[in-house]
Amino acid sequence: MNIGMTAENETVKDGVTLYLLQSVDQLLLTATKERIEFLPHYDTLVKSGMYEYYASEGQNPLPFALAELIDNSLSATSRNTGIRKIQIKLHFDETQGKPAVAVIDNGRGMTSKQLNNWAVYRLSKFTRQGDFESDHSGYVRPVPVPRSLNSDISYFGVGGKQAVFFVGQSARMISKPADSQDVHELLLSKEDFEKKEKNKESIYSGFIRNRKPCDSVHITNDDERFLHCLISEEKEKVSFTAVVITGVQSEHIPYLKNYFHLWTRQLAHIYHYYIHGPKGNEKRTSKEVGPFNNIDIEISMFEKGKAPKIVNLREIQDDMQTLYINTATDSFEFKAHVEGDGVVEGIIRYHPFLYDRETYPDDPCFPSIHHKDGSGHGAGASRRLGCPGNGGSQASHLPWPARSSAQGYKV
Amino acid sequence: MNIGMTAENETVKDGVTLYLLQSVDQLLLTATKERIEFLPHYDTLVKSGMYEYYASEGQNPLPFALAELIDNSLSATSRNTGIRKIQIKLHFDETQGKPAVAVIDNGRGMTSKQLNNWAVYRLSKFTRQGDFESDHSGYVRPVPVPRSLNSDISYFGVGGKQAVFFVGQSARMISKPADSQDVHELLLSKEDFEKKEKNKESIYSGFIRNRKPCDSVHITNDDERFLHCLISEEKEKVSFTAVVITGVQSEHIPYLKNYFHLWTRQLAHIYHYYIHGPKGNEKRTSKEVGPFNNIDIEISMFEKGKAPKIVNLREIQDDMQTLYINTATDSFEFKAHVEGDGVVEGIIRYHPFLYDRETYPDDPCFPSIHHKDGSGHGAGASRRLGCPGNGGSQASHLPWPARSSAQGYKV
Repeated sequence: MNIGMTAENETVKDGVTLYLLQSVDQLLLTATKERIEFLPHYDTLVKSGMYEYYASEGQNPLPFALAELIDNSLSATSRNTGIRKIQIKLHFDETQGKPAVAVIDNGRGMTSKQLNNWAVYRLSKFTRQGDFESDHSGYVRPVPVPRSLNSDISYFGVGGKQAVFFVGQSARMISKPADSQDVHELLLSKEDFEKKEKNKESIYSGFIRNRKPCDSVHITNDDERFLHCLISEEKEKVSFTAVVITGVQSEHIPYLKNYFHLWTRQLAHIYHYYIHGPKGNEKRTSKEVGPFNNIDIEISMFEKGKAPKIVNLREIQDDMQTLYINTATDSFEFKAHVEGDGVVEGIIRYHPFLYDRETYPDDPCFPSIHHKDGSGHGAGASRRLGCPGNGGSQASHLPWPARSSAQGYKV
Repeated sequence: MNIGMTAENETVKDGVTLYLLQSVDQLLLTATKERIEFLPHYDTLVKSGMYEYYASEGQNPLPFALAELIDNSLSATSRNTGIRKIQIKLHFDETQGKPAVAVIDNGRGMTSKQLNNWAVYRLSKFTRQGDFESDHSGYVRPVPVPRSLNSDISYFGVGGKQAVFFVGQSARMISKPADSQDVHELLLSKEDFEKKEKNKESIYSGFIRNRKPCDSVHITNDDERFLHCLISEEKEKVSFTAVVITGVQSEHIPYLKNYFHLWTRQLAHIYHYYIHGPKGNEKRTSKEVGPFNNIDIEISMFEKGKAPKIVNLREIQDDMQTLYINTATDSFEFKAHVEGDGVVEGIIRYHPFLYDRETYPDDPCFPSIHHKDGSGHGAGASRRLGCPGNGGSQASHLPWPARSSAQGYKV
């Protein structure tokens, strides 16, 4: 029995010391130990995105949340031999249900144990003590590849949950590894957590549904009607993972709809070297599909009564990285070895001030104010660095300050 | 029994469906539900500080972690009628044990239930559903006070844990409310979590020790010898809370020792209006202790064979806020009402370019490079804003971008 608490419905168990007090705050003759439980509140998951994406230099942080999910898909597809396909589907057709964002990849998929581990907050892929079987168990650092395009990202066991719950209030994870005949499905939702708390049920207990591919009989809610179609597409897939986010925060919807060009362009910038290969989107050279540019990242948006908008990030020609590469007059590649086996790679690009203007490309979405007379420019202003920035850098799993300041690749 | 798992030591319980499979990955005749547990990993607590303090504009984030703990003490002492005393003690005398950082206040203290809630990650002070009794249950927003010095901070139930585990690997919380005869003590440590995981014990179970004030017989470890002295000081206190951090991350120790002047000065800047009152540290006016400047924040550092360094933040005369106030030629106070009952208050200060130099004060710790010839200054550069910044702002619980950019008070 606990000191200082009323004993409603408690029975005295064997081995428990019973203290009889004259009043709850009476002086104790000897120190006592009171057993407590301090399970993290479910906001740990549901509000996990709140801090990380809070501040992003005045930009809408939503593209970074989507990037976090793309990172996971890059990691999942890293051992694919053929095309690595990553799709982001925005379901905004109200006849098909409430707004939803789905991220689907043809990667290696997860066993039910790995799916279970996905749900464990802060289970790092390096944690292998105890009885955890991480989806990266037996982690071996991949060999270095040019520009660090090794997809070895998502380290801390927080990114996916944070991203999902920044975008919406509910995550349905659907996955199938190649050697499994059935599909594993797990739903984590704010609503469900609240229900469990209210009914005093175990907060961090849940169910994984093991079902046949294409079986969507469990989807009975009209709000999720679009899932029938999405689940029917499982037929042709050997292995896959789909993250379906519903309860999309209402402020995200107009942004995703009205700034489609802006945020897809931003993703094309972030994943520039993953989709174009180590040389980037050089317009002068011919393109061949090789081991470092077999990644298709396709964004599609479905609205009622409109033709779907579909864009493959590789088609985007005005992302900043493409502009940097193709407006530079010259470039200097460097590689520095640091601290034993560390390597920092990068490019310095030369954008001269030519005749009457800067050749350093302006961001079309955030144009700078031009000083026609050139005043305000110091001596160094006409030589700017075009850095590969975040595209392809391992730093892309870090919070935004790293995203915006990375000046090279560390492998 | 769970599908897909071996059944070591499991017994079939009533109401459980037993599936007999020919192989673990055989095709299922019907969808099955597999119960899973997904308790957040204890790194949720132990590594909670990792992200928040990761990036702080190139400054060492340690002062912000200490500020988080001072915030908690401000909140705890907000109803004090007399002096509000907050002490930070740095124990770096190895004859007294391993390095430790203690933050002690004479606030209202916590009951064992409130102490239990402190340990619950993400339990916001606004969460009152279910059977949580927050240490702020029945939360009522305080009435506005000048410059928002209402100590109504620490909202999200993460700050304290994050700060503690950014500083070290173990937190001993010791607290006594005025109406309790005994002291409550709770230890959370990385070591303890690891032990529980290894022994397959319940991760988020622990003990609160209820003991008499000044009773330190349970401290048997030589590493914590300094605690005997600290606990003996409980005698004169009606109510208090002490946060004792041990396992201090080794990189913090040289910083705390060698940059004592720098980080105490930074804290004096952050809490400027709390320690000096709404007018700040104006050198022209006489000082009287009133309801808004009865807060003593005292930092002391103990090293072997040296006299202790002790500083009351109010004595510091070169913090940026003091410099801003006393170098401004003129100031303009403003107050704007927004969105119903929101109020934004602030001051614009005028620091002219006088004769041959800026009167805007330089940060002595981060001096800027002076252009003797004045080149590089645009038209606006000689009129700079001296903003109260973070001191006294409710924004002080937000991550650093808010700290460094707050330009007024929102009450």
